[in-house]
Amino acid sequence: MENNEGMLLLFSGPSGVGKDTVLELIFEKNKNLQRSISLTTREQRQNEIDGVDYHFVSKDTFMKLVDEKKVLEFAEYGQNYYGTPKGPVDKWLSEGKVVILKIEVQGAQKIRQIYPDAISIFLMPPSMEELESRIRNRGTEDEKGIRERLNIAHQEIKRCVDYDYIVVNEDSNKACDDVLDIIKVLNFTYKRMNNYISEVIKNV
Amino acid sequence: MENNEGMLLLFSGPSGVGKDTVLELIFEKNKNLQRSISLTTREQRQNEIDGVDYHFVSKDTFMKLVDEKKVLEFAEYGQNYYGTPKGPVDKWLSEGKVVILKIEVQGAQKIRQIYPDAISIFLMPPSMEELESRIRNRGTEDEKGIRERLNIAHQEIKRCVDYDYIVVNEDSNKACDDVLDIIKVLNFTYKRMNNYISEVIKNV
Repeated sequence: MENNEGMLLLFSGPSGVGKDTVLELIFEKNKNLQRSISLTTREQRQNEIDGVDYHFVSKDTFMKLVDEKKVLEFAEYGQNYYGTPKGPVDKWLSEGKVVILKIEVQGAQKIRQIYPDAISIFLMPPSMEELESRIRNRGTEDEKGIRERLNIAHQEIKRCVDYDYIVVNEDSNKACDDVLDIIKVLNFTYKRMNNYISEVIKNV
Repeated sequence: MENNEGMLLLFSGPSGVGKDTVLELIFEKNKNLQRSISLTTREQRQNEIDGVDYHFVSKDTFMKLVDEKKVLEFAEYGQNYYGTPKGPVDKWLSEGKVVILKIEVQGAQKIRQIYPDAISIFLMPPSMEELESRIRNRGTEDEKGIRERLNIAHQEIKRCVDYDYIVVNEDSNKACDDVLDIIKVLNFTYKRMNNYISEVIKNV
């Protein structure tokens, strides 16, 4: 089924909901999916691999790429920049691949303007209490930081109305299967089936 | 998740593709789905049950229902009328149910005008050769009838572009599971999740 159009999948959810765990399971279970790797100016951590976890670049390089319109969207967190490189996404889409992009709510809005056909999935906590306990259990934030994160999470969850699909992350494996089912079903759309259909019709 | 909006699912496909077999499996595997039962003026066959296979009515009653705008769409085949009653569909949708309507391509167009949110699935033969052999194996048609059916099938298949999803019926069980996956995934849309989301957000 080559030459079918590719598909861009935006994957969002509040901090602490478990996006990374679910994404890891997804890429483990379906090797055909293409993961978009972000650019960042923050320092590489010891367990991280350049080109796998992130593309680690200097601030100068980052800004040069932004100026050259090679970055789809970017944002600043804690004095570091994070962005989505445009080139690989366009290449994969032209090859008919399913590209998954982990992105926060505001970045997703920008991407939708550039790729109106992008499909978006919002990963939802089973409850705010559960989200709070997940953030607390990480132990990386003080009380003020936790309050701040929950406040942002609340604002983000309200934007789930902009998303095509909402998957509840009660259990990572179930959430992973739900996302894979969404991708499976998206393959039944005309856009992804047109080669098959042309084949059926031409033999008449 | 009561009070969520219902969902109307239009199910089409060319004559001979195996719609009835797939639908039977679907309703067997998921007892929550609501099957819309058509009105017909044709005679009841011995193995058919009124109110299960069809609502069998006289031509007078049928035309009265049409005049009273109680029929969503209707068509004539072999001097008999077939139509979709409006009342039950509206009732089920208001109850938040998933209603499945077997309907031919032109009827589906009419229904979409009345229910723009209806989701439509087109059941596709794996090939025209396979469709021809399925029609021949039925043994209900002479050569002219077979040619006519194939000609109509070809026209209908071209309209699959109007459908949200296209499922290939290579194997009835697989096609049934594909349709059930589509329904599962449609339940992840905001429209069907809004009660859940309100519940999560209100507790902040």
